[in-house]
Amino acid sequence: MKSKLASKVLSGDTIAAAKLISGIADEVPGAFQEMSHIYPHTGKAYIVGVTGSPGAGKSTLTSNLISHFRKEHTTIGVIAIDPTSAFTGGALLGDRVRMQQHGEDKDVFIRSLATRGLQGGLAKATIGAMHIMDAMGKDIILVETVGSGQIEIDITRVADTTLFVMTPGAEDAIQLMKAGILEATDIFVINKADREGADITINDLQTMLSMRSWLPDEWHPGIVVTEAIYNKGTTELAAEISRHREYLTRTGELKKRKQGRLKLELMETVESLLKDCITNIDHGEYLARLIDDLAKGKTDPQAATRQLINRLASELAQIQKRHKHGRKTA
Amino acid sequence: MKSKLASKVLSGDTIAAAKLISGIADEVPGAFQEMSHIYPHTGKAYIVGVTGSPGAGKSTLTSNLISHFRKEHTTIGVIAIDPTSAFTGGALLGDRVRMQQHGEDKDVFIRSLATRGLQGGLAKATIGAMHIMDAMGKDIILVETVGSGQIEIDITRVADTTLFVMTPGAEDAIQLMKAGILEATDIFVINKADREGADITINDLQTMLSMRSWLPDEWHPGIVVTEAIYNKGTTELAAEISRHREYLTRTGELKKRKQGRLKLELMETVESLLKDCITNIDHGEYLARLIDDLAKGKTDPQAATRQLINRLASELAQIQKRHKHGRKTA
Repeated sequence: MKSKLASKVLSGDTIAAAKLISGIADEVPGAFQEMSHIYPHTGKAYIVGVTGSPGAGKSTLTSNLISHFRKEHTTIGVIAIDPTSAFTGGALLGDRVRMQQHGEDKDVFIRSLATRGLQGGLAKATIGAMHIMDAMGKDIILVETVGSGQIEIDITRVADTTLFVMTPGAEDAIQLMKAGILEATDIFVINKADREGADITINDLQTMLSMRSWLPDEWHPGIVVTEAIYNKGTTELAAEISRHREYLTRTGELKKRKQGRLKLELMETVESLLKDCITNIDHGEYLARLIDDLAKGKTDPQAATRQLINRLASELAQIQKRHKHGRKTA
Repeated sequence: MKSKLASKVLSGDTIAAAKLISGIADEVPGAFQEMSHIYPHTGKAYIVGVTGSPGAGKSTLTSNLISHFRKEHTTIGVIAIDPTSAFTGGALLGDRVRMQQHGEDKDVFIRSLATRGLQGGLAKATIGAMHIMDAMGKDIILVETVGSGQIEIDITRVADTTLFVMTPGAEDAIQLMKAGILEATDIFVINKADREGADITINDLQTMLSMRSWLPDEWHPGIVVTEAIYNKGTTELAAEISRHREYLTRTGELKKRKQGRLKLELMETVESLLKDCITNIDHGEYLARLIDDLAKGKTDPQAATRQLINRLASELAQIQKRHKHGRKTA
């Protein structure tokens, strides 16, 4: 019975993999146990993040990239981060229908992660899904995310190469700079390049990038022009991704990005455990009372913080004690 | 000497207030001590969040609202969340120049918060600045934030009323729904309403909102049409904010939002303390070694998590011991 699901995943069973990914997202305790059999088989996949404004054409572009990579016999995993909405009650997959053309290809594995209920745990769930696809032997994992709103995952912290997809006239370069996108992007994709104003957008972007003083061996973000619905520019984009990957490998940056991902996962897991511990003290009553005291001015945030840390320390000490005791009697 | 800065802030000294806000943002230990004198004077201000796509006209709209509220003798605080960029080396304040017209008005206090280095601590710094402006006696605090990119603050979690500013044709309603914006917004502002396609944008938004089934006493997000550069629609927008405020007060939702803010502040403070504690174990070497072991496959994320939690428990127990001992000998 032990690690049955994990064994199936490792043998390429997509239904088992889908089940395990859902288990991780829904924080099913058994799923985490299965993961310990997955981890030894990870560390080989290359992660490409696809971000950008809503409507920029990310899904079409992702679909084109899949077709391109498949011609090179590269196996592909896709994680589509899908905000869920009370307006529909489920994940919104409209655009992703485009990717269905790859549904028959056993070397393409596509999963959506619904963000509802994952606030804060989204990076953790995404990295979990990456581990699973990585262990399944997928060479490249594309992570597509909606680039606006408060439920966005910080894709740049989990990807090896981050694409930012934009369209002519939709966002100006100064606004991109203000939003911190210029620094977070490895490759800019100007999609829908047949639209009016494409030249201006490319020019503005080049000017902005040239304003910055670059370190001798620093990566200069590339600009690739595409018309995704006509599959134009896909080869150039894939070549630019390769060029970035070579850069990361050559400079040792790739190793650093992988370590950063592991650190993020570890810290998020630890944080959510501590948060659970805090919110469960006295079945939640402790925290509720503390917030109530704060609202009434009976205590202040600093005193409340000290109180909470002290209580957490006692809780953790008790858990440790129980754990040690459990070991002895076992 | 004690609480000198706080006393000045409470007497309305804007230079002292600016200094204390910077101190909180930069995590100067002394600043947190000053805050304990600020807290008892907080809890009265009403918080309005102004979010939306870059270039939608948020700053102009905010400036118009300030003028409107000032005619009603309402005192105003403004917190402008400013991403910083290596391209300029500092906060980007271009747009905010518009607000300078209020610079001479002693009842308007405007501060920018640069997001660089505040990753994760942004909500905490923002709430700190709110407390300070609140204690200074500001009636309404407007928090303006850039609505895209990975450095955004989740404004809806700290505001009483959240505005989403959009422009005709710039974003379509389905994309807003996908990004979770429909649910997070209290009032939609269609700015630059003289542009082509305004009717379509309004219509689409209304259709989207009507698709949802509303609870009997639930707030229906309002739609206000403005042309901020001509100061058109400001009165209507202010009236809609008032209507939402009355709704929140009547239903008891206002109290809940304030409690939510206090909880967010408490949890963020506790989390950053715990994070500091973890990253400082053995001067950072403990965490670095753990990440290295993970990268080499010597351990897995679950084992590493357990190890880290155990070590944190010991660290917290030692801090408690030192604290108790310190008290006895004092």
